[in-house]
Amino acid sequence: MSKIAVLGFGVVGSGTVEAFYTNRESICKKAGKELDIKHVLDLRDFPDSPYAEKLTKDFSDILNDDEIDIVAECMGGVNPAYDFTKSLLQKGKSVVTSNKELVATKGVELLAIAKANNCNYMFEASVGGGIPIIRPLHQCLAANKIEEIVGILNGTTNFILTKMIKEQMSFYDALSLAQQLGYAEKDPTADIEGHDASRKICILASLAYGKHVYPERVHTSGISRITLEDVEYAESCNCSIKLIGSVKQLENGKILPVVRAAFVSRECPIANVDDVFNAILVRGNIVGDVMFMGKGAGKLPTASAIVADIVDVAKSEGTSISQVWETSEDYNFIESYKLAKTSMYIRITSDDILHTTEKVKDLFGEVKFLSKKIVATNEIAFITPAMIEKNIDEKIDDIEIAGANVIGKIRVLDI
Amino acid sequence: MSKIAVLGFGVVGSGTVEAFYTNRESICKKAGKELDIKHVLDLRDFPDSPYAEKLTKDFSDILNDDEIDIVAECMGGVNPAYDFTKSLLQKGKSVVTSNKELVATKGVELLAIAKANNCNYMFEASVGGGIPIIRPLHQCLAANKIEEIVGILNGTTNFILTKMIKEQMSFYDALSLAQQLGYAEKDPTADIEGHDASRKICILASLAYGKHVYPERVHTSGISRITLEDVEYAESCNCSIKLIGSVKQLENGKILPVVRAAFVSRECPIANVDDVFNAILVRGNIVGDVMFMGKGAGKLPTASAIVADIVDVAKSEGTSISQVWETSEDYNFIESYKLAKTSMYIRITSDDILHTTEKVKDLFGEVKFLSKKIVATNEIAFITPAMIEKNIDEKIDDIEIAGANVIGKIRVLDI
Repeated sequence: MSKIAVLGFGVVGSGTVEAFYTNRESICKKAGKELDIKHVLDLRDFPDSPYAEKLTKDFSDILNDDEIDIVAECMGGVNPAYDFTKSLLQKGKSVVTSNKELVATKGVELLAIAKANNCNYMFEASVGGGIPIIRPLHQCLAANKIEEIVGILNGTTNFILTKMIKEQMSFYDALSLAQQLGYAEKDPTADIEGHDASRKICILASLAYGKHVYPERVHTSGISRITLEDVEYAESCNCSIKLIGSVKQLENGKILPVVRAAFVSRECPIANVDDVFNAILVRGNIVGDVMFMGKGAGKLPTASAIVADIVDVAKSEGTSISQVWETSEDYNFIESYKLAKTSMYIRITSDDILHTTEKVKDLFGEVKFLSKKIVATNEIAFITPAMIEKNIDEKIDDIEIAGANVIGKIRVLDI
Repeated sequence: MSKIAVLGFGVVGSGTVEAFYTNRESICKKAGKELDIKHVLDLRDFPDSPYAEKLTKDFSDILNDDEIDIVAECMGGVNPAYDFTKSLLQKGKSVVTSNKELVATKGVELLAIAKANNCNYMFEASVGGGIPIIRPLHQCLAANKIEEIVGILNGTTNFILTKMIKEQMSFYDALSLAQQLGYAEKDPTADIEGHDASRKICILASLAYGKHVYPERVHTSGISRITLEDVEYAESCNCSIKLIGSVKQLENGKILPVVRAAFVSRECPIANVDDVFNAILVRGNIVGDVMFMGKGAGKLPTASAIVADIVDVAKSEGTSISQVWETSEDYNFIESYKLAKTSMYIRITSDDILHTTEKVKDLFGEVKFLSKKIVATNEIAFITPAMIEKNIDEKIDDIEIAGANVIGKIRVLDI
């Protein structure tokens, strides 16, 4: 018999309790033992919940209960989740979590504490919601060196971009629809500016390359400046604009993690993953490309991953099955995005567009000019050849110094 | 230190050896111990292979070598792989395999022997090549009751269908191209008649529903009777023809495993999975739909899955991590496809097409008539409403008795 506690009775926490009791019989069968949820921690009251008698406001009820050996942390945020998780692991209680912010910022420390205390810290739910990705990456693809991971890691932004692409809604209209539907929060910054995707790519990169990658080391930009004109230019060259989190190992051995909107060719399967779906493509040196797809968030999908971790922990009683990665004070491990090669979509307005066009050709060499239904006479858009991003920015500076305005700039995904 | 033996030095066996030595350092790190391949069994000579000194023709070199504790069975076929696997497991040596035929026909017995001898029988490579699916299904989705699994499980037929759809090649031209490219064997029966896909859906169904599903219980048909006309009619209603292996649990509790060509709406993500790629969509009652995609066969992708199983076995030393399912003499567990509901595409020629059209409307009620660029005057094609397949067949009999010829009949996937 294992007793479980759940920290937080919000969307994910209540989903976890619901999922557990919906399938309890088969879950216990798979775990090979009886499991039950004993406590749920939340500061709020839920008098009408069928689980009201399990609710407590006092964390020590859980920490000091020797019957509890597995805790699902569904609080989100670094504090107080970090302190709670640390003290639970130090007591030898395994913790499973959906908290990507905590894993991305403190994962290496919490994994080490778990290992030292012969328990587990698991986080399948932190990336891709219910899509199996953490375990497949470190277990099913164990034969591979991971060359590259490319993902649509945030469902909210994918929903917004899909509305822009398929229904020509403006960014702000699509955002407001996403908020109405409950896909985006009132303060949507973490989603639309790419921070959420950044935390997720940190977790995947840390797992794939064995050293902790912190969010502040990941060049991150969002989708708030994408316009319908950009979308139309992308369509004209058979591309879709997606918010892409990616990491790859470069020839110099360093890794390049980055989150940004990108033109993605429709030949690439992730270009066609729409709405709130997430997709993660993993390229291994043995397996080639494999892709995982599903709803990347939501109450029950996320709960599915949390309960799977609970089953795994219950089965592995006493042993440490956690994946572990190293700390990385070694800043040389991560390449600056400025030094990486990329093609770039650039959109320019200018009072003397002929002159600007000549300047563009001089600076960038063979660019691919794009068109759309109606193009203003003072505007051009094009895709540069692949070159070091720093050099692209220098050339953009030259163009702006010469009097033109760069009003759009989006990287082109090379996969 | 664990010593490994590989049975069979054909495509998959040699790929396994190559993959292992390509990434040996990181593989051993993930396994947490030194690993090496000591013996490779094959009756042929490979004097020029860099691994020639590991080759043996005598199985007892492996069976009686106490240093060997993990064996990768890459022989294929039931005999002698079955006898070899049984004697290895009885000696407590874990076996990992890509042999879907053996798992589909003898899996339940071999899993039980492994469990009794405290070792493991693992088969991630048997379905979907390098695509992680076995472990995600029984581990990552452990919180779920599996409602349905729908997959493109055979790369050869998907390649042939893609050529028919995208390049209007005839079935036989596409098959012959697949043979030239090494995707199809000289005797392509197992692929094109659906037997390969059938074995794979048996394995997935056994895992998902906990009872062994034998291939002879799975209604299986292939793609050899699909014509370019069928492809064109499918396109006209925004569908793609795919060879689909699927299993779902019905309301009466029985399961319905089936392999057949099907019209798949392009709204469904698997409709757009082309060429030699495989894709497996799993619908869980908690997670909703998740999809896994990648190259489903080939030397190195399959090796990737075998080596992942080797790493897992090496890590779990001594304990039994195998998934286990029950024998199923209970024939009531599986529903006859004849009693299941489906929509059907039907193509008919008749000397009196007006009369036949009236007859069709009388029999099937509201059908959806299809058109294509050029339709012969003596021909109609339509999609029936969803009804019990047995009833559809009775109505088809009626139509044929009335003098018309049913020249095409393809199920429509409902997902």
